[in-house]
Amino acid sequence: MSGTPSERLKELGLTLPPPPKPAGTYSSVVLDGDHAWVSGQIVLQGGAILHPGLVDREVPPDTAKQVARQAALQAVSALHDALGTIDRVRRIVRVTVYVASVPSFGRQHEVANGATEVLTAIFGEAGRPARAAIGVASLPLNAPVEVDMVVALTEA
Amino acid sequence: MSGTPSERLKELGLTLPPPPKPAGTYSSVVLDGDHAWVSGQIVLQGGAILHPGLVDREVPPDTAKQVARQAALQAVSALHDALGTIDRVRRIVRVTVYVASVPSFGRQHEVANGATEVLTAIFGEAGRPARAAIGVASLPLNAPVEVDMVVALTEA
Amino acid sequence: MSGTPSERLKELGLTLPPPPKPAGTYSSVVLDGDHAWVSGQIVLQGGAILHPGLVDREVPPDTAKQVARQAALQAVSALHDALGTIDRVRRIVRVTVYVASVPSFGRQHEVANGATEVLTAIFGEAGRPARAAIGVASLPLNAPVEVDMVVALTEA
Repeated sequence: MSGTPSERLKELGLTLPPPPKPAGTYSSVVLDGDHAWVSGQIVLQGGAILHPGLVDREVPPDTAKQVARQAALQAVSALHDALGTIDRVRRIVRVTVYVASVPSFGRQHEVANGATEVLTAIFGEAGRPARAAIGVASLPLNAPVEVDMVVALTEA
Repeated sequence: MSGTPSERLKELGLTLPPPPKPAGTYSSVVLDGDHAWVSGQIVLQGGAILHPGLVDREVPPDTAKQVARQAALQAVSALHDALGTIDRVRRIVRVTVYVASVPSFGRQHEVANGATEVLTAIFGEAGRPARAAIGVASLPLNAPVEVDMVVALTEA
Repeated sequence: MSGTPSERLKELGLTLPPPPKPAGTYSSVVLDGDHAWVSGQIVLQGGAILHPGLVDREVPPDTAKQVARQAALQAVSALHDALGTIDRVRRIVRVTVYVASVPSFGRQHEVANGATEVLTAIFGEAGRPARAAIGVASLPLNAPVEVDMVVALTEA
């Protein structure tokens, strides 16, 4: 793999979604020294949650995996908005993938791969984070998936 | 907004609750370089959980928002206890708000505002963190809300 | 308490389990400056999840506490694998214990003690972290407990 993350984004034919607008008293990204903390991302489309509901009940796992991918791209968009570039990403340090789950569902790790596969496609091995994938009772606006991250940056 | 956080606390007429006592093998606050990590805070009153149960079943969302506010104040009290002052807070970097939720509940972000609104009242824009609001199955002692945080500090 | 963590591990008669193999697009441990971030650990035995199910339904709380202990040891094994030693652990900064819970269960903190008690046995007061114990809807492969951590390291 070669080139910068922004070059790879183009090669992959990916366009970042619009950066998220915080729906409450928080920041989408907090810059803290050489780290960026990205708030939990849920995915809306046309003002409504994309594929609302619990995974493996209203939302098929494969659909949830696509939502996880989109939430990760939205987190990358938030980083771009905060930094002016995604090429200062030194390492995606940590990603948490929260999957709204029925109690019997046990494939949160497969849903989570939707987020981390696109991160490694863009950032290479620097996009392979420590990760936790967990099944939660529900999420804001009945989103099926929420994704947050901690990112290490190079100097500005 | 002017003055120090401790001055604003007074202006707001707020009194910090007593610092929490760890109920297990953990520390309420870990100081690590110029960061403080505050353990998940649940709110007790007179030795019992304040408003136990699931939000939107036993506990109305507005009540849960008040509990989130109180949990955030307790986290600030834990910081005060660890540092001797709250004026070394440089930035509330990250807050996670866990809301014990029935699967149909989707307003965890409104509950979470209870925590982050009081933080911005005290710390101004430095109190506006990256945030994740999630709905969990249940919490210790059937608490309705748990709040943890990561805080950046100025030099001692 | 005296000696190094690796000496105490021997004195306690503990053997670290094999380091975990990531089951997806993530790293078991990300080293970031003088910190290590350990991915969420679930416990398998002979290729299958140890004690699958929800705590206080299929899995008794005391059994879940033992699984939390084993997940913490697996996290320590992951650190050993990444660093070549566990003696560079300066502080276990933060531990999150996710407990797959029925909505009525409220003793996640007791389950979590299984993780943090063994950490303090090995690392002494440096093993007493900030902690959050939460009850989640379900976990990957229907694991009863998942444990992740953030660790501060001494220079190599």
